[in-house]
Amino acid sequence: MEASSSYDGHAFQHRHQRVLPAPGRLLGAVPSAEIVAVGTELLLGQLVDTNTAFIAQALAGIGMDVHGTHTVGDNRERIAELVGGALERADGVITSGGLGPTVDDVTKEAVCDALGAGTRVDGEAIEAMEALFASAGRELRENNRKQAILPHGATVLKNAHGTAPGFVAWRADGKFVACVPGVPFEMKAMVAGQLLPLLERHFHLRETIVTHTLHTFGIAESEIDHRIADLFEQSDNPKIAVLAHRFTCDVKLNGKAQNREEAQALIAPMADEIRARLGAVIYGSDSETLAFVVLQLMRERGERLGVAESCTGGLVSAELTAVAGASDVFVGGVVAYDNDTKTRVLGVPPKRIAEFGAVSGEVASDMAQGARTNLGSDWAVSVTGVAGPSGGTSEKPVGLVYAAIVGPYGVTAHRLQLSGERAQVQQRATIHALGLLWRRLRAEPKGARET
Amino acid sequence: MEASSSYDGHAFQHRHQRVLPAPGRLLGAVPSAEIVAVGTELLLGQLVDTNTAFIAQALAGIGMDVHGTHTVGDNRERIAELVGGALERADGVITSGGLGPTVDDVTKEAVCDALGAGTRVDGEAIEAMEALFASAGRELRENNRKQAILPHGATVLKNAHGTAPGFVAWRADGKFVACVPGVPFEMKAMVAGQLLPLLERHFHLRETIVTHTLHTFGIAESEIDHRIADLFEQSDNPKIAVLAHRFTCDVKLNGKAQNREEAQALIAPMADEIRARLGAVIYGSDSETLAFVVLQLMRERGERLGVAESCTGGLVSAELTAVAGASDVFVGGVVAYDNDTKTRVLGVPPKRIAEFGAVSGEVASDMAQGARTNLGSDWAVSVTGVAGPSGGTSEKPVGLVYAAIVGPYGVTAHRLQLSGERAQVQQRATIHALGLLWRRLRAEPKGARET
Repeated sequence: MEASSSYDGHAFQHRHQRVLPAPGRLLGAVPSAEIVAVGTELLLGQLVDTNTAFIAQALAGIGMDVHGTHTVGDNRERIAELVGGALERADGVITSGGLGPTVDDVTKEAVCDALGAGTRVDGEAIEAMEALFASAGRELRENNRKQAILPHGATVLKNAHGTAPGFVAWRADGKFVACVPGVPFEMKAMVAGQLLPLLERHFHLRETIVTHTLHTFGIAESEIDHRIADLFEQSDNPKIAVLAHRFTCDVKLNGKAQNREEAQALIAPMADEIRARLGAVIYGSDSETLAFVVLQLMRERGERLGVAESCTGGLVSAELTAVAGASDVFVGGVVAYDNDTKTRVLGVPPKRIAEFGAVSGEVASDMAQGARTNLGSDWAVSVTGVAGPSGGTSEKPVGLVYAAIVGPYGVTAHRLQLSGERAQVQQRATIHALGLLWRRLRAEPKGARET
Repeated sequence: MEASSSYDGHAFQHRHQRVLPAPGRLLGAVPSAEIVAVGTELLLGQLVDTNTAFIAQALAGIGMDVHGTHTVGDNRERIAELVGGALERADGVITSGGLGPTVDDVTKEAVCDALGAGTRVDGEAIEAMEALFASAGRELRENNRKQAILPHGATVLKNAHGTAPGFVAWRADGKFVACVPGVPFEMKAMVAGQLLPLLERHFHLRETIVTHTLHTFGIAESEIDHRIADLFEQSDNPKIAVLAHRFTCDVKLNGKAQNREEAQALIAPMADEIRARLGAVIYGSDSETLAFVVLQLMRERGERLGVAESCTGGLVSAELTAVAGASDVFVGGVVAYDNDTKTRVLGVPPKRIAEFGAVSGEVASDMAQGARTNLGSDWAVSVTGVAGPSGGTSEKPVGLVYAAIVGPYGVTAHRLQLSGERAQVQQRATIHALGLLWRRLRAEPKGARET
């Protein structure tokens, strides 16, 4: 873990995260694995690897420890060396990528090198490929046949979504190398459906890691640290970690036990204790985003939401509509990037813009009220600010953002000074606007009408 | 490299990327490096590693080959083992993270283990930290002093933005281990300002890799492959790679030479040849996004743009406003998520929605025309569709999207059937809408008026 040692003129930032030392083996030996992503384009950053994180989380779910992850190019010798080294350190290695039909797909050959294994042709894989190609009216090419060559003695992992089968090759000492395709949806189906059950059986896994995450808004990481410092020290199962993002902060609880229920039972009292201490700043848990909880609260109230944005340029609306089923609550939004649009579509009086400037609490309030009126919603949230990199002045510097919330109880405007580059300012403003809306929604009784 | 072997009912997807085998050493031995990101929270996916890609690209820029990248937890033994192994394979290792003051920051100790090096206290680092803390009115703590302990004989890399100094430790054979902090902006400044110049001197680097990327829209990867297959085979400097994304496809040219100018001179004729063959589908190069080129073309025409979105929920607007300086061209947008909003703010007649449905070419056209009228822009683009996961019917399945473009020459509507989950459908629809707008902008003479 890295300490952030930056000095921002006010205070030292707190560490990004605090994790207790590993609790050791709680329930006997935990099998370990390393993960290898294969692909020159990954090394060069031309393609982003999402497979490794998926596989790491999948292994944690069945109680396997991931000791390290690696990326290597399409180079037979280097892959073999890396896989061989990883097999010395861990009980198994999982590779993704490099199982395709082209000459630079060499994962399989490299794994055979690392294991000293010979190869065989898998008849079923050939048949499956022939059927797939036939249904597309195409003939199987020779380089596709190459995909059916597997290490001798390997267990086949069928590919429900493509031609490249995966496999698990075993070493005499029980260690394994599993190879899955690099195409994410093929990989995911294969790992979840076939590889995990196979590893659970092989290692007689009786342990699982369950993670429960509490999301907070409007509290500094240092303040969370302060309030739960003693819990860090007391407990190592569940393990507690605090992770700071933009304006939100997560508290993660990782519990290890023989099954999901027991892990959850270990986590529950600790989660209750943290909820008791942090209370009002916790907006949700696990997959619940601010947008999700805002829509949920609004739905419970039987009320609907509109949005007006300037500097965030559509991100607040996008965050809301990323939640499936948003349409029953979110009526729509206006991206009023131009002052004229603020007037035309949101009805902001030009003299207010002239008097206070487009970036002001007054105009933010007018935008929110205009959105509420023109969209016919019960609530509206607005954002206007200077996202940068240009457009800042000494009075209104880059990062100055106003957010306003209007609801049945009236309008509130909030002044924010955000740091970062354009995209960060936009993202931070988006999160903050939703957080402020969430805070008002939970503070105000439902069914209230404007006085 | 991975072949996508998925079958989508029409044709087999082509490979995501095609890269020629490494061209060997063109200009003598190229020094190699491996990169190690340290942090348990990275392994668990709780923090996303952006450092490795930055360092990999920085090394490519000075002509060093990255053979592999790794992630390892805060575990002294495992870090030492990994760094030691990497040093056998490559000329140097660069680690990021684990230089902080807490007990679980053990990168330095592990590197000393791997090198068999002793430690010393760096007086200058102590003084710099004392000054930084004094200016904040705080006293230096003992665990911060730990940050000034460096491997014996190491070259210090000063930290302009924090307390943890970095360093380069040397092995007798000239191989090195460089350690930089994990906090991205501290790391970036240190790598760019100090580490790269030092490595250039140490390895007498006379080679650099320059990447030139051509972006296409509206052409299948297989078609690109077909049109430039012979170039793949002929040339290995520059090396050509084709990389498919959602609806766009990139052609990357990596040129290696003694300096930037020579590398560019190698790339230029090949880029010209590819431009000649692909021509009309290339929308930009390098950092130019579809949103950027659309805004650029619009700016050249002296015309302005409005947006109306339903299923993309603000993403089209957000994509445009992600471009700095968008405000002179982009007037704003309406997110008409609700049918009532389509009528209220965009003026779509309710009977059109009743007759054709909200997801139809007719309503898409009305939305675009309404946005153009109500926002007072010259052009408008609209998107309406079924993003899923629910809301699909046999007639209008999930992934059915209509995009419409209206400009001085009138309105065009486009029917798209997109694949993927909700977020993917939204992203693909966004890119497609911008791509269709780009295509019309480049096809239509400017200054034209509606007939």
